[in-house]
Amino acid sequence: MVVEILNTGSELMLGRVLNTHQQWLCAQLADLGYVVSRQTAVPDTAAAIRAGVQEALGRADLLIATGGLGPTSDDLTRDVLARFLERPLHEDPAILEQITSFFTSRKRPMPASTRVQALVPEGALVLHNAFGTAPGLALEVPANRFRPGAASSWLVMLPGPPRELRPMFTEQVVPLLRRVLPAAAKFVCHTWRTSGLGESMVEQTVAPAIEGLVARGLELGYCARPGQVDVRLVARGDDAEVLVREAERILQARLGAVLYGRESDEEEAVLIRRLTELKRTLALAESCTGGLLAHRLTNVPGASAVVLGGFVTYNNDIKQKFLGVRPETLAEHGAVSEAVARQMAEGARRVTGADVALALTGIAGPSGGTDAKPVGTLFIALAAASETVVEHHLNPYDRETFKQVSTQQAMDLLRRRLGPESPCTLKCAC
Amino acid sequence: MVVEILNTGSELMLGRVLNTHQQWLCAQLADLGYVVSRQTAVPDTAAAIRAGVQEALGRADLLIATGGLGPTSDDLTRDVLARFLERPLHEDPAILEQITSFFTSRKRPMPASTRVQALVPEGALVLHNAFGTAPGLALEVPANRFRPGAASSWLVMLPGPPRELRPMFTEQVVPLLRRVLPAAAKFVCHTWRTSGLGESMVEQTVAPAIEGLVARGLELGYCARPGQVDVRLVARGDDAEVLVREAERILQARLGAVLYGRESDEEEAVLIRRLTELKRTLALAESCTGGLLAHRLTNVPGASAVVLGGFVTYNNDIKQKFLGVRPETLAEHGAVSEAVARQMAEGARRVTGADVALALTGIAGPSGGTDAKPVGTLFIALAAASETVVEHHLNPYDRETFKQVSTQQAMDLLRRRLGPESPCTLKCAC
Repeated sequence: MVVEILNTGSELMLGRVLNTHQQWLCAQLADLGYVVSRQTAVPDTAAAIRAGVQEALGRADLLIATGGLGPTSDDLTRDVLARFLERPLHEDPAILEQITSFFTSRKRPMPASTRVQALVPEGALVLHNAFGTAPGLALEVPANRFRPGAASSWLVMLPGPPRELRPMFTEQVVPLLRRVLPAAAKFVCHTWRTSGLGESMVEQTVAPAIEGLVARGLELGYCARPGQVDVRLVARGDDAEVLVREAERILQARLGAVLYGRESDEEEAVLIRRLTELKRTLALAESCTGGLLAHRLTNVPGASAVVLGGFVTYNNDIKQKFLGVRPETLAEHGAVSEAVARQMAEGARRVTGADVALALTGIAGPSGGTDAKPVGTLFIALAAASETVVEHHLNPYDRETFKQVSTQQAMDLLRRRLGPESPCTLKCAC
Repeated sequence: MVVEILNTGSELMLGRVLNTHQQWLCAQLADLGYVVSRQTAVPDTAAAIRAGVQEALGRADLLIATGGLGPTSDDLTRDVLARFLERPLHEDPAILEQITSFFTSRKRPMPASTRVQALVPEGALVLHNAFGTAPGLALEVPANRFRPGAASSWLVMLPGPPRELRPMFTEQVVPLLRRVLPAAAKFVCHTWRTSGLGESMVEQTVAPAIEGLVARGLELGYCARPGQVDVRLVARGDDAEVLVREAERILQARLGAVLYGRESDEEEAVLIRRLTELKRTLALAESCTGGLLAHRLTNVPGASAVVLGGFVTYNNDIKQKFLGVRPETLAEHGAVSEAVARQMAEGARRVTGADVALALTGIAGPSGGTDAKPVGTLFIALAAASETVVEHHLNPYDRETFKQVSTQQAMDLLRRRLGPESPCTLKCAC
């Protein structure tokens, strides 16, 4: 089964927006057993869209095209493909009614241009849009039209905005695919996430022990992200699950606490899960990371049960007033120091009554560095009832990467101190 | 000039990582006058990489390939392309020396596998990697090899990690392109960012007045993002600057305060600039947005001069203890209410001594909603010396979009209250 994605949008080619569709759709499709073999992005011109679709339909059983279904003048996909596939457009009264009521219910006037979204190519299935006005469309392209000798292909067109595309895919495209293009061979893809070792070191630690499984068809992949390395295990066919499960046992034995989660698990989700399990509360005091640690942790649904609160203490007065950092410590050691990190964490723990507190102070850059404390300097303190530990790191990256890596290291420090998750949480997920 | 990008990586096809290279490279190239006409992503297999490169070189003057230059077994690009283009690989002693010292300086052992990164295809230019061990490569592919009758093409290979790729592109690829493939026609692309109106309303407000310029060759594009719509103005040729400048005057007249910035300006950067200009300090009190507002604002270099600090007050006790929210108000109105938002903002302003304070309280979901206060309910309060204003919004999105849109609305509230930037800041940038 050949699956391709075509993303349309001149804003993509001009680099004005990030293409989040590719990742999201590829992940959803892979989990269903459809591995995307090519993704292409083209600008909003009739010629580029036509060429992209024609080439992809020459290879693919399923082509998912995104974007260009909206109401503005640069939304060409519906029109171009209807003409190219020789499917005249007809106005669908039910869609028109939905568009009208979308605006009525929001007490907003309906712009005349939105009416074009009610046009449907002959023979297309309409995918209802619960979060916007542009419906999606699905078309079966007859056998032999683009791939002599092959079966027919399916072309699915989805609207560009992610919060319209995603529920439409999950609720309508997935059932359609299950019906018209059931996935053939067994496919297993598990990703394990690690924190604290570089990419080569991770490979050197696990690869020799996994060689035998690779010879039996297991595919291994590595992907480095800020402060993290993902290890991907892929297998196909009847043995797929056995191969992946054996490889996972080796990863767990070799990497131990370096592994922090699976699949799309983020360190923050693992940490919130673990704190919830242990019934421990957490407070945060952030200087250089400016609220990113609080933001990451509070992205996790249910975080409010364990994260009592946080302080973003950019200013020294505020460090003193709310966290009880001593002025003489600031004067003697500076705000970026082991002593101040320690007092911030202990202060945050004391004033909030949390069980544990994390504090970060450092130099995110681009300015503010010195010879003794260059840009990238970071102190992380973890205060608990028993003791306070402080780690010193050097993260000489750009400002945003610094914040990302530093919050990763802080979460990792706490995660390791809390000890591994109860075996059930990790193992049962396998 | 035809420019294409090829991103290699099975992790992309499996949806395990986001392809940030596309946006970043496309934006850099567009600003230099090279518009990318196609971007393709393929998995890490020799056949897919070869096919992707062969097809792209059949169309492009410049092909930029990313990924697959690292030390692990799934890094195939260098090897596959050297064989495909018939350029034998030779070990480069200078690169080997750099790789060795990369590990020595970090006091880490050098894994044997990293040595492969010192291999260079015959005739390739080496692009030094200041932030990692895999150098980039640039190759001139002779005329007529893939495009009969056309000139030679350039193939540039860059390493996958963004913090290695980006400085390599800026410092080494850009000067190379200027030398070997100077951009031909004049090209102007300006993006204006708006906040507070939907996509159709933005188009309806500006398009009729811009029609005349479109007839003269201006291209207009719209792109909706959470809480925002971008308007893109593109023109080519000798008239390009005049056309875009006239269109910008129309945008400014029609959209007024709905416009908040240009190009990659984020609302947070505009706000920090404006607060700095006015010498006003800001404090934050966040409940439902959990630190994202502080994080966004502190992503801006120099934020520490105006952002005194913030509170992430998930917990009601903490709202009372640090912000002085009254227990009877919490009991009577609930934590998500106009009255509590007001007390949070006024409290944050009072205890920090900031000139203004923003507070957010709401229901991010997925749980916690009621009939009276559904998921998505948000109160934003802005406290200043003169008065406190509170806005009520409904943002019925997923948790992360809720946080994104809500922080956008809070920044927008403050930006509009502060009044427009001094004319110089916006106009001179044109």
